[in-house]
Amino acid sequence: MAVGQISFPQMQAIAGITLGTANAGIKQTVRPDILVVQMAAGSSCAAVFTQNAFCAAPVQIAKTHLSQSPRWLLINSGNANAGTGEQGLLNAQVCCSNLAVLVGGQATQVLPFSTGVIGEPLAVEKIKIALPNAVTDLAEQHWNQAAHAIMTTDTFPKGATRELVVEGHIIRINGISKGAGMIQPNMATLLGFIATDAKVAQPVLQACLAQAVEQSFNRITVDGDTSTNDACVLMASGKSPVSEITEHSPHYPAFKQAVLEVCKELAELIIRDGEGATKLIRIVVEQALNEEEAVRVGKTIAHSPLVKTAFFASDPNWGRILAAVGRAGIEELVLEKVELYLGDVCIVENGSRAAGYTEQAGQAVMNQPEITITVKLGRGSTTQEVLTCDFSYDYVKINAEYRS
Amino acid sequence: MAVGQISFPQMQAIAGITLGTANAGIKQTVRPDILVVQMAAGSSCAAVFTQNAFCAAPVQIAKTHLSQSPRWLLINSGNANAGTGEQGLLNAQVCCSNLAVLVGGQATQVLPFSTGVIGEPLAVEKIKIALPNAVTDLAEQHWNQAAHAIMTTDTFPKGATRELVVEGHIIRINGISKGAGMIQPNMATLLGFIATDAKVAQPVLQACLAQAVEQSFNRITVDGDTSTNDACVLMASGKSPVSEITEHSPHYPAFKQAVLEVCKELAELIIRDGEGATKLIRIVVEQALNEEEAVRVGKTIAHSPLVKTAFFASDPNWGRILAAVGRAGIEELVLEKVELYLGDVCIVENGSRAAGYTEQAGQAVMNQPEITITVKLGRGSTTQEVLTCDFSYDYVKINAEYRS
Repeated sequence: MAVGQISFPQMQAIAGITLGTANAGIKQTVRPDILVVQMAAGSSCAAVFTQNAFCAAPVQIAKTHLSQSPRWLLINSGNANAGTGEQGLLNAQVCCSNLAVLVGGQATQVLPFSTGVIGEPLAVEKIKIALPNAVTDLAEQHWNQAAHAIMTTDTFPKGATRELVVEGHIIRINGISKGAGMIQPNMATLLGFIATDAKVAQPVLQACLAQAVEQSFNRITVDGDTSTNDACVLMASGKSPVSEITEHSPHYPAFKQAVLEVCKELAELIIRDGEGATKLIRIVVEQALNEEEAVRVGKTIAHSPLVKTAFFASDPNWGRILAAVGRAGIEELVLEKVELYLGDVCIVENGSRAAGYTEQAGQAVMNQPEITITVKLGRGSTTQEVLTCDFSYDYVKINAEYRS
Repeated sequence: MAVGQISFPQMQAIAGITLGTANAGIKQTVRPDILVVQMAAGSSCAAVFTQNAFCAAPVQIAKTHLSQSPRWLLINSGNANAGTGEQGLLNAQVCCSNLAVLVGGQATQVLPFSTGVIGEPLAVEKIKIALPNAVTDLAEQHWNQAAHAIMTTDTFPKGATRELVVEGHIIRINGISKGAGMIQPNMATLLGFIATDAKVAQPVLQACLAQAVEQSFNRITVDGDTSTNDACVLMASGKSPVSEITEHSPHYPAFKQAVLEVCKELAELIIRDGEGATKLIRIVVEQALNEEEAVRVGKTIAHSPLVKTAFFASDPNWGRILAAVGRAGIEELVLEKVELYLGDVCIVENGSRAAGYTEQAGQAVMNQPEITITVKLGRGSTTQEVLTCDFSYDYVKINAEYRS
């Protein structure tokens, strides 16, 4: 059901970062469902987490471990270990300890991540039994397998990679992510794991990740539901011969841009795999006073079930888009200045249907699998983009039958 | 598809208020699609309107006419006259003029209302031709016919009535409403028309309506989409022999309460007729610090597609409810104090699944067509209620096929 032709990219190894997977049989028994990532000694690690007040047990633990110079990530799919109270915290800690014993580290050096059903106790024993296999499997080449292991309702593994030549050497940035539903990330989405061989101190890495996430994962929505388990990690092994990248390095802007591109590509892949999605909808809000109002208008359109069902039906029902713009809560919006485009077709100008607009022209755009809506607010010069997908019978089917 | 057994109530005449309907063939030719309401000279009229910035042409006109002592309402279904620019305003004014000529009044004494598809030009000529039939039809007994004439995707006409004995006389309050989709009223919903024979000055009537709407229509949501055409009107003919009701009358609280009850009943009927609805979901938020946060938590749950599809599937997937509470943006929410109930069944306490909870007990509640979710926030003593319905295949079907 993915929108567009998707293939997992050829991902080169990142020196100093190894990945190992295994099947613990947490929810399904066919493919690996646990992933261990190991960072070489001396690596930096940055992370951002969900802003949902009910953040899951592993998120709570990972937040406290982040300042302890983490060396390992332990990710399981099939169970979110969320809404599980004290026992959930204990279970997440036990998993960290079990891995620490195997790899000869401290439990506090392990960041745990879980994704899957909420409210069920985590199968700690199953994970314990499978962990040695994941550790044995650790290798720099296992990005594809890792992307598979973190999938839940995802229909394809998601990866993105960039290279950057600095001081005559290649710096690599690899990223994988998962996510298809409960997607309106706020701070970070679902699970995203990105690694580079560049040498970057933790505070710089953290700032770089926070900015990239704000402009990528925080600009997508499938259903407006912010997960309890969202997390995105950026690891830097420092194994590249290139000298350390600081905020003042001449190479910092290019590095930041490459991280942003990886994040954007991963975020777009999540929308292409949106639950039940048949269309990718790119909402570009132009001429806004500021970023906040541009994003607000974009997300109001992106969340409207009426807009999303119209796109599913390939119906150029632009009145619903206009109604969404109108209820976004923008103060002193002048209707007569608002313009609306479907693809290149101008639909609305001066507060009503554009003179030259024909239903046929709108229909031709709506028949495409990838559609850009452009809203010009006529208020300023800020542009922001929000990505979403349509709302189909299959969205209802997938979410009505999720636990059965 | 309505949830529950619905029958239109026996509604007595309101002295001084007459209603007439006719078929103008705006969208469909079978049943009446225009309604004229006439208020006796000396009546008061209060109204509240949508807060959508793209408010429709008739809403813009009605707002300006409200202060001109209106005597007539002119309502059409089948076309919203929204997103129609200058021509839309002109069309609404022409309709007012046409009615004014027929009834011997001023165009400014007519409040116009439209509901239906957005962005299409209003069929002014068709309405002009049908108007004399509606005027000839004016009668105090026509509440049921009036409720039919204002329907769009509604599957049944909606009415509510209350009586109140004051000074030995009966005061009557009748109300009708329409609405099934694009429903998250903000200020007033869709179309609601309420009339009483009490004598009430306009400012008192306006305050009474505003308060009632806030506690009724503004507490329901089908899909989170605020319409461009929402409006609710409260008319008082003053034909009752009861002395004038002011804010200081001993009878004012009872009158206000009766208006609120009519509004709540009409609002609940709209949810029972929610597009594709198979379940009525009553969300009660208790122990909130204040009304704002209680409503915010209630609406966040009510808007969650994941919660709504789980209810469609009768799946007690309480993790989704908890995740919605968590992302409602309540500052310093203490997870351990939050309790969650499905019907009488306690599901969550101390931040995780309640000790005695069984999936069977949750399932038994979910199998009912009317379900109450209670969230106790453990922060204060404010309680608020929000009504919504589930999200079904038919919601997608109805909205994907609306214009075809």
